Amino acid sequence: MRMYDLIEKKKLGHPLTAQEIDWMVQGFTAGEIPDYQMSAFLMAVCFQGMNLQETTAMTLSMAHSGEMSDLSAIHGVKVDKHSTGGVGDKTTLIAAPMAAACGIPVAKMSGRGLGFTGGTVDKLESIPGYQTALDREEFFSIVNEIGISLIGQSGALAAADKKIYALRDVTATVDSLPLIASSIMSKKIAAGADAILLDVKTGSGAFMKTVEDSVALAQTMVGIGEQAGRRTVALITDMNTPLGDTAGNAIEVVEAIQTLRGKGPQDLTELCIHLAGNMLYLAGKGTLKDCLADAKRSIADGSAYETFCRMVQRQGGDLSYVQEPSKFPTAPAFAVLAPQDGYLAAMQTEEIGAVAGMLGAGREKKEDSIDPAAGIRFVKKTGAQVQRGEVIAQLYTHREEKVAEATERYLAALSWSNQPPKPSRLILARVTAEGVERQQMQEGK
Amino acid sequence: MRMYDLIEKKKLGHPLTAQEIDWMVQGFTAGEIPDYQMSAFLMAVCFQGMNLQETTAMTLSMAHSGEMSDLSAIHGVKVDKHSTGGVGDKTTLIAAPMAAACGIPVAKMSGRGLGFTGGTVDKLESIPGYQTALDREEFFSIVNEIGISLIGQSGALAAADKKIYALRDVTATVDSLPLIASSIMSKKIAAGADAILLDVKTGSGAFMKTVEDSVALAQTMVGIGEQAGRRTVALITDMNTPLGDTAGNAIEVVEAIQTLRGKGPQDLTELCIHLAGNMLYLAGKGTLKDCLADAKRSIADGSAYETFCRMVQRQGGDLSYVQEPSKFPTAPAFAVLAPQDGYLAAMQTEEIGAVAGMLGAGREKKEDSIDPAAGIRFVKKTGAQVQRGEVIAQLYTHREEKVAEATERYLAALSWSNQPPKPSRLILARVTAEGVERQQMQEGK
Repeated sequence: MRMYDLIEKKKLGHPLTAQEIDWMVQGFTAGEIPDYQMSAFLMAVCFQGMNLQETTAMTLSMAHSGEMSDLSAIHGVKVDKHSTGGVGDKTTLIAAPMAAACGIPVAKMSGRGLGFTGGTVDKLESIPGYQTALDREEFFSIVNEIGISLIGQSGALAAADKKIYALRDVTATVDSLPLIASSIMSKKIAAGADAILLDVKTGSGAFMKTVEDSVALAQTMVGIGEQAGRRTVALITDMNTPLGDTAGNAIEVVEAIQTLRGKGPQDLTELCIHLAGNMLYLAGKGTLKDCLADAKRSIADGSAYETFCRMVQRQGGDLSYVQEPSKFPTAPAFAVLAPQDGYLAAMQTEEIGAVAGMLGAGREKKEDSIDPAAGIRFVKKTGAQVQRGEVIAQLYTHREEKVAEATERYLAALSWSNQPPKPSRLILARVTAEGVERQQMQEGK
Repeated sequence: MRMYDLIEKKKLGHPLTAQEIDWMVQGFTAGEIPDYQMSAFLMAVCFQGMNLQETTAMTLSMAHSGEMSDLSAIHGVKVDKHSTGGVGDKTTLIAAPMAAACGIPVAKMSGRGLGFTGGTVDKLESIPGYQTALDREEFFSIVNEIGISLIGQSGALAAADKKIYALRDVTATVDSLPLIASSIMSKKIAAGADAILLDVKTGSGAFMKTVEDSVALAQTMVGIGEQAGRRTVALITDMNTPLGDTAGNAIEVVEAIQTLRGKGPQDLTELCIHLAGNMLYLAGKGTLKDCLADAKRSIADGSAYETFCRMVQRQGGDLSYVQEPSKFPTAPAFAVLAPQDGYLAAMQTEEIGAVAGMLGAGREKKEDSIDPAAGIRFVKKTGAQVQRGEVIAQLYTHREEKVAEATERYLAALSWSNQPPKPSRLILARVTAEGVERQQMQEGK
C-alpha cells in the first residue's frame, strides 16, 4: 500500500476500504506516513467527504490507536455523555449527578479544552481541593461506591486522533463532517462506555450553524456508534443563545449547584433533564417518558444535589463551597448597559464566548492559565424586553484594561428589535438509530 | 500573514492576492512554512483552482525564488521553446538548429527528466564527448559565435518550483492546471528568454488527454507569459501516436540527424517546421507564413544540419557520429510481430512510452542511469495496414529478460480495425495572446 495512492483515490472521490484506512491511521500514528501526505489527504476529505463505512473505519482505527479504557470493573451499564461545545454549557456538572442519583453508574472523563471557557475539568477545579487526576483503581472504586466520578481525560486515549487533530488544526481541515464525527467518536469509543449520549449544539455559538448540518453530524455519529456496538442517541440543542445565565468557570459551577438545588435557569434545567433522561433511557431504565420523569424528580427530591456533594467530598473538594457558593471568589464586575429600548432579538453567541475568553475565562493555548473568577453573567438573554440603560450583563474580570473593548464587542454581538422575537426551541431534534424525531420535545414536566 | 488563513481562503474558493502568494512561496522556499501546510494548500488548489492573476503571481514568485538567468550578453531576440513532453519528442534537437540557421540566437537549457526516455540533455550525451555542463560565459560565447548552444539546465533556476514540485509529486497534487502552468512558466521566465514557444502535447501519450484541456493549459501559460512581458505562443500538437519513428536516446539522436538532413519522418519534419517557424515569428522575423517557409528551407539547403554539426563540434562532441550515425551503439533488437491482419487503429502512447522505459531508455528515479542504446523503432504507426506476422516494431534492449513482458505490453497498447482510421491532425490549434486558431494549420510546404 502507498499513501500516494490513497490520497489520489480520495481526491478522485472514491471510497477507501477499512483496511486502507487502518493502514493509513496506524502508519501516521507510528510516524511512517509524513505529515505532508496526511494533510493533503485531509484536505481531499474536506472536498470529497467519507461515507459512513469509511468514517466508522477511521473512528475505530483511531480508537484502537491508543489505550482502550476497560470499564468492566464498574457494575452496570455505563453511559457516556458528550457535548460538541458551546457558551455556558455546564450540563455535565448537573446531568451526570442526576443520572447517577437515578441509579446508573457515571464514570466520566472530561477534557480541559481550549476556547471560550475552560472544560468541565477546569470548572471542577474551581472547587478548592477537588482532584481531577485519579488513578484508574481509585476512579472505579469511587464510581462503585457512590455512583459517580468526574475526572480528567487520559492523554493516552485515541493517540491517532490527537496527532491528526493537531495537524487539522494548522491546515484548515477542521470543518469536515466525517473528520469531526470520527474525532469525537474515537475518543468516546476508546473511553469504554456501553452507550453514548451526544449533545450536538447548533446555532451562532456552535460549530454547526444550521440544524440540518447538526442533524447530519448527529446521524453520522449515531451511525458510527451503532456500527461499533455502542447504543448512541444524539440531541440537537439550541446554541443561538448562551445556555443558562453564566459563562466562565467558578461562576458556572455556582450556577450548576443552583440548578441541582432546583433553582437554576429554565433552559439549563430543561436541557439537563433531557440529557439525564436520555442517559437513563440508554441504560435501559425504562421508556423515555419515565426516564425523563425520573431525571426531573432527582432535582425535586434533592438526590442529584446530594450525589454531587458526595462526589465533591470523596474527590477531596471543599464541600463548604458547594454548600455556600458565595465562598467562590469573584473578579471585579463591570456592568454592560442596554444602549436602547427594545427587545433583545439575537445574540452572536460565538462572539460572546470570545468575550468571555478575553476576560480570562478561557485559554488560547494549552499552556495558558485560566482565571476561575472571570466570566459573564447574562442578565438579559434573547427575547427579553429592556429599557435603555438597564443592566443586560455583568462582566467579571481581573483584566480591567480589557473591559472597554470587551463591552464594545459584547454590544456588537447583540441585535435589537421593536417586536418580541419568535421564541426558539431548546431541543430541536433527537437522533437515534431508528431515525430523526424533529417534533417539539416533551419537557419532561 | 498566516499560512492557515491562506489555506482556508483557497479552500473556500476565494482568490489570493499577489502579495499573499509571494509571501507563501518565499516563506515555503525559505523553510518557514512547513510542508504539511503547503501540501494542504496545493490540494485545495486542485479542487478550487487559481485564476490567471493568482497563477501569474505564483509563477513570478517562483521564477524570482532562485537565479534569474540574464541573457543580455547574447545579441538578438532570444526565443525559448518548451514541450510538455511525449513519446518520441526529439524536436529540440531539430527545431533549435533550424531556428539558429535562420538567424535567431538559440541559447537553450534543457532538463534530464524522468519518464519514458531521457530528456534532451540525456539524448545529446549519447554523442561521445558532447559537453552539456558549460559555464555561463562559455555558453554565451558559443551562442554569439555559432548561433546556438544546447546545454543542461541549472539547478538553481526557480528554486521554489523545485521544492513545490517535489511535494506535489508525493501528495497527488500534480494534475492541477494552474500548478502545471506556473511550474513550467516559472522555469521559462527564470531562464531569461525574451519570447517563449510552447508545444503542448495532447492525447494518449500526453499529460493532457483532451484538446480542450490542452487549450486551457496553453491559454493559461500564454496569459502568464504575456503578463510577465514575454511574448508567448503555444501549439497544441497530437500525442495520440508517438512522434516520429523512434523513442529512446541515441536512436532519437540518429532520427534527428536524418530529419535535419531532410530524410526524417513526415510528422516529425512537419512539427519541427512549425516549431522553428513559430520561434522565428516570435523573434520578429516576418509573417508566420514567411517564417514557416524559412524554417522549411533551412532543412532543404542543409543550413540547419550544418548548424547542428558546428554546435556538436564546438561543444566537444565527436562529429564522426553525426556524419556516420551507424557508429552509435545499438542494443540487441527484438521484433514485435503483428498478431493479426488489419489497420493499426490506435496506440496507447503513454503505455508505449512505459515500454521504452522498461527497456532501459528512461529512468524512474533521479539516480537511475540510462542505457543510451535502448529504445523502440516504430515500424508501423497508427493508420498503417499490416498483415499478421509483419514486423510492427523493434525493441532495442540489453535487458533480454524483460523482452517477453515488454512485447506483451506493447501489443496490449494497440487497437486494431478492419477499416482505415480517420487520419488525425498533427497540429490541432495555435494559441496566442489574440486567441485560439483551431483551423487546420498550413504545413509550410
